[in-house]
Amino acid sequence: MMLILKKGLGQAEKEALVQRFKGLGYGARLSRKEGQALLVLDRPASSLDLKKLGAPAWLEDLVVQEDPPKKVSWAWKGEPSQIDLGGRKIGGGHFQVIAGPCSVESRDQIVAIGQAVKASGAGLLRGGAYKPRTSPYSFQGLGQEGLDFLMEAKKKTGLPLVAEIMDYRDLDKFEGVDLLQVGARNMQNYGLLKALGKVKKPILLKRGFANTYEEWLMSAEYIMAGGNEEVILCERGIRTFETHTRNTLDLTSIPVLREMTHLPIIVDPSHGTGKASLVEPMALAAAACGADGLMIEVHNDPEKALSDGDQALDPQAFDRLMDKIKSLRACMEGWV
Amino acid sequence: MMLILKKGLGQAEKEALVQRFKGLGYGARLSRKEGQALLVLDRPASSLDLKKLGAPAWLEDLVVQEDPPKKVSWAWKGEPSQIDLGGRKIGGGHFQVIAGPCSVESRDQIVAIGQAVKASGAGLLRGGAYKPRTSPYSFQGLGQEGLDFLMEAKKKTGLPLVAEIMDYRDLDKFEGVDLLQVGARNMQNYGLLKALGKVKKPILLKRGFANTYEEWLMSAEYIMAGGNEEVILCERGIRTFETHTRNTLDLTSIPVLREMTHLPIIVDPSHGTGKASLVEPMALAAAACGADGLMIEVHNDPEKALSDGDQALDPQAFDRLMDKIKSLRACMEGWV
Amino acid sequence: MMLILKKGLGQAEKEALVQRFKGLGYGARLSRKEGQALLVLDRPASSLDLKKLGAPAWLEDLVVQEDPPKKVSWAWKGEPSQIDLGGRKIGGGHFQVIAGPCSVESRDQIVAIGQAVKASGAGLLRGGAYKPRTSPYSFQGLGQEGLDFLMEAKKKTGLPLVAEIMDYRDLDKFEGVDLLQVGARNMQNYGLLKALGKVKKPILLKRGFANTYEEWLMSAEYIMAGGNEEVILCERGIRTFETHTRNTLDLTSIPVLREMTHLPIIVDPSHGTGKASLVEPMALAAAACGADGLMIEVHNDPEKALSDGDQALDPQAFDRLMDKIKSLRACMEGWV
Amino acid sequence: MMLILKKGLGQAEKEALVQRFKGLGYGARLSRKEGQALLVLDRPASSLDLKKLGAPAWLEDLVVQEDPPKKVSWAWKGEPSQIDLGGRKIGGGHFQVIAGPCSVESRDQIVAIGQAVKASGAGLLRGGAYKPRTSPYSFQGLGQEGLDFLMEAKKKTGLPLVAEIMDYRDLDKFEGVDLLQVGARNMQNYGLLKALGKVKKPILLKRGFANTYEEWLMSAEYIMAGGNEEVILCERGIRTFETHTRNTLDLTSIPVLREMTHLPIIVDPSHGTGKASLVEPMALAAAACGADGLMIEVHNDPEKALSDGDQALDPQAFDRLMDKIKSLRACMEGWV
Repeated sequence: MMLILKKGLGQAEKEALVQRFKGLGYGARLSRKEGQALLVLDRPASSLDLKKLGAPAWLEDLVVQEDPPKKVSWAWKGEPSQIDLGGRKIGGGHFQVIAGPCSVESRDQIVAIGQAVKASGAGLLRGGAYKPRTSPYSFQGLGQEGLDFLMEAKKKTGLPLVAEIMDYRDLDKFEGVDLLQVGARNMQNYGLLKALGKVKKPILLKRGFANTYEEWLMSAEYIMAGGNEEVILCERGIRTFETHTRNTLDLTSIPVLREMTHLPIIVDPSHGTGKASLVEPMALAAAACGADGLMIEVHNDPEKALSDGDQALDPQAFDRLMDKIKSLRACMEGWV
Repeated sequence: MMLILKKGLGQAEKEALVQRFKGLGYGARLSRKEGQALLVLDRPASSLDLKKLGAPAWLEDLVVQEDPPKKVSWAWKGEPSQIDLGGRKIGGGHFQVIAGPCSVESRDQIVAIGQAVKASGAGLLRGGAYKPRTSPYSFQGLGQEGLDFLMEAKKKTGLPLVAEIMDYRDLDKFEGVDLLQVGARNMQNYGLLKALGKVKKPILLKRGFANTYEEWLMSAEYIMAGGNEEVILCERGIRTFETHTRNTLDLTSIPVLREMTHLPIIVDPSHGTGKASLVEPMALAAAACGADGLMIEVHNDPEKALSDGDQALDPQAFDRLMDKIKSLRACMEGWV
Repeated sequence: MMLILKKGLGQAEKEALVQRFKGLGYGARLSRKEGQALLVLDRPASSLDLKKLGAPAWLEDLVVQEDPPKKVSWAWKGEPSQIDLGGRKIGGGHFQVIAGPCSVESRDQIVAIGQAVKASGAGLLRGGAYKPRTSPYSFQGLGQEGLDFLMEAKKKTGLPLVAEIMDYRDLDKFEGVDLLQVGARNMQNYGLLKALGKVKKPILLKRGFANTYEEWLMSAEYIMAGGNEEVILCERGIRTFETHTRNTLDLTSIPVLREMTHLPIIVDPSHGTGKASLVEPMALAAAACGADGLMIEVHNDPEKALSDGDQALDPQAFDRLMDKIKSLRACMEGWV
Repeated sequence: MMLILKKGLGQAEKEALVQRFKGLGYGARLSRKEGQALLVLDRPASSLDLKKLGAPAWLEDLVVQEDPPKKVSWAWKGEPSQIDLGGRKIGGGHFQVIAGPCSVESRDQIVAIGQAVKASGAGLLRGGAYKPRTSPYSFQGLGQEGLDFLMEAKKKTGLPLVAEIMDYRDLDKFEGVDLLQVGARNMQNYGLLKALGKVKKPILLKRGFANTYEEWLMSAEYIMAGGNEEVILCERGIRTFETHTRNTLDLTSIPVLREMTHLPIIVDPSHGTGKASLVEPMALAAAACGADGLMIEVHNDPEKALSDGDQALDPQAFDRLMDKIKSLRACMEGWV
């Protein structure tokens, strides 16, 4: 239930109301919508409780909803979430670029790429140690060794780390990783989502390749319902009849989700297109329609990459892209 | 690599060849294709080894393949797999109907439904104890209690059990279940698939709602590569633009997979359509195009079902359907 | 608006009511639903008119609908349409198989195929004279000459003809064709549909490859609104992410449309799958779920066909299929 | 066939070669790729002809292609097409915004909107007179009267006109229209495309909602093969499982087609999303990834629009969008 508060109430009064509702056992939070101050409850308030708290004095109107607002919903928070990623913020105006190879292949490779993408302005380093592969006989990643190499790259570059976790039994091994990625195939792996709801670390939740916006948000809700409210959404393309590209990148998801949720949203144009030549234009488009960040595959020698080499930029191309992104972001700041 | 054997070789000679290849470290198996006897190896045979085994005498021709045949492939086995499900066979001419409610709701419910579907001719009883639900706030199943109720229904009816497992940590609890179901959302949950590859029990692998035939087979290969070769595939509809039905049931998967794999394939017209009135015609169509079985949701009081009531048949409608299925199967036997 | 008629009214009385409503300017028709006799009007009846016609005496209840029932709707007719195709009926229990080559290639070819499919039991002969091709440089059909060859085959076999019309300026040329086909690409070519609404000849309306059931019916309504109520619907597969087959045949459309419309529905498993080996199982499945007929590509020499040879059956395979279809239809008659 | 020309050849020499090939009956054109000068022929050159033209002297190498290059292909032209639209250029660096209502509703409406969008910087005025509607009973447009109103708006504003043509019999009526639009439903209406190939006027070819890039280009080829080489492509969204938006706008089509064709490409974010609030972000994204223009629905009173009001911007919102587009385009000019 949402309570529309009277105009003229001070911030202290509003917060006192929240505390008093909590004292009566409600989940309660302040929010805003279309210029109105709202007090969002997790269930309908009884008229008795409203009276007890002196309702007519501060209450403009009631908005009864069938369901309580979900934690992912814009209504629940009323402002964009800002999430700290190992010292770097994302969301609410803060933009981050995550870059690195599809797979960690060697110590030298990941350190070199880390240094290159840092020099170009990337905020976080990504690299796959455990890889979800369609065939059981494909390269499955270096595993623990890959994570060790990532840690060395972190030490040498100072960049926080992003890596995909496929199995919650591996959680201990990911201690040094700053942002845990859930891949598209696991978006509805509820056992994993529930386990990540208990973790004190932000989660990067990729969209399943045939999942609706609603289902995507409900998967984020699985994590948030468990207590971990630091979720970042990542659009990575959906599956359509078009075979020219690996996936069909659905950039409309950015403004749609902006209306539905307070969570930050980033875009992965590398998996979203599957072709290096398409990464720059789609990265720019993602920034232009309001994404909070990008995740981009960079490899020092794309032709020899052990996985997904076709979609990786080399460090020079990544550097040129970063220049354009900075220019575009500066231009967009003038719009507000 | 496939070796085409000379005509006129006796079965004993062929089997001796298999043993001798195994003795040289090859994976080896007899197979058939278009009237020819084949010896399938898991890697190319060296010409030295062929000579050593007296090749020209028994070898008609070589078929070099880029990749070794997958365990799911028709070539690997050369005949349809028959899988034992708690005493009932499926595949290679054996047809089974799995029936029961979406969710186990109570002891009385599951026992009553079990008795009803058995009387109509169902071969196995299904019931969900752990339910994958899009929202974390939806009914998630009775869990352990649901499995206990299923066990009682098994005792009272003698029907083997089918239930969905979502988390491999639950494996112990599923001891009494005869066929472990992997749901569509978990088709590419590789941690779960690998764990099931170590289990000594048949697995029912549902198709993910936007997965290709190739990906589906590769997920079966994950289980088989681990050592568990008893996998049954289940078509349950894919996601398309059409919103009138819950999913678009892709029955063409039956004859396509029949050409690609030796594994049995069944169809779930309940999830595949989402509407009770569509279950009978689509079940009949599935049988007519060669499915090895069906999985059908039956509820004693569909309107009060805790989940998916819209798609459940009542026992009377299920009984009428089973009569038609038997009639159709009898008719089809005359065709061969 | 639908008027539920009192039980016990005789057929003559009901028909007299229809005439009296028509006399007052209403579109009116008798229908049935769930055991009730209905009188369907094309707009809400005024209470004055109801009184004038002695309403309480014969009127059980009123069902006001927002929109008048469409002519395609089941409510409009209340019984399945039976359409005459050059002497052969389809719909309402009558089943027809249309067979023939994708393209008419020569006089001898079409006569030979016509004789072969007639001998196997086909009811109509199909053949493309004007072909819609994705590329302007592909073979576009023999045109007028192809129609001439078709006419000769009709003379020699007595089979009514089915051919695709792409441009209404060609209507004169199709005089000898008994069933005019609208192809999938033209399902929403409203100029063509409106022109066919003025024709006194049945129309075979194929489903567009990404059109919903609702859109498909509305395209049929375009034809019926023009005055031509003889429309047959043809499911031919939709476009999905799956690339193994040419299209994904959506057989669920059969029972869904059965609930929505009185029009006959047939299935084209040749275009629906794109592979000859899949035609037989999908044709059988279509018949099993209640289709009113089939359209099947047959070629006397599939490997040399000028178009779509991969999906054509040779006459022998078609003959085997027809035997199974007859056996299946006989079996199904026992079910009613 | 493509002939790679020797370095150092002057422009006059190259053009003389083209003329001489034409003299021998070849279709011939100069092109460029990766720094190489190419001479593109519409069929393989015979070695005799090559000798006759003194081949070794100017020929570096031959690139034999299975098929001749299509007229839509980049190879055919080797530089971006620039098309004149009633005095305004589009393509090859020229960017145009087409704006106006979905349907022309009245003289005052279209004149007022025309003046508003011109003031904001639109280059062309659009308005529907003949509307393709799913139902035959929906508003079908004002027809001839709508075209008359458009002509008045053109007189008063000086803006060139864009309007959709559905039937080639209407061509005469569209004389005053500067850019003829082919709608998504008619993308494969080959009769219409062939007729437009004979017209001396640019064509705006919208992508069908389930058509591949390849099919879209082949439909443009139908027009170009007829002699009309002024085709502009318009991305307007494809049909997917996502129901939150009207279509899924596929912006990746922009950079993909840029690699495949020399034709200009614009984007329609209004139909592409179906929601006014999503138009601005997706228009900006389209510009950022390299579109040559936009087509945007603007209505002076969206809530009362006779069709598609949900997706129309009011003139104020359009003006704010145009400011951002200009700012973004200026920023992008600095990148080259």
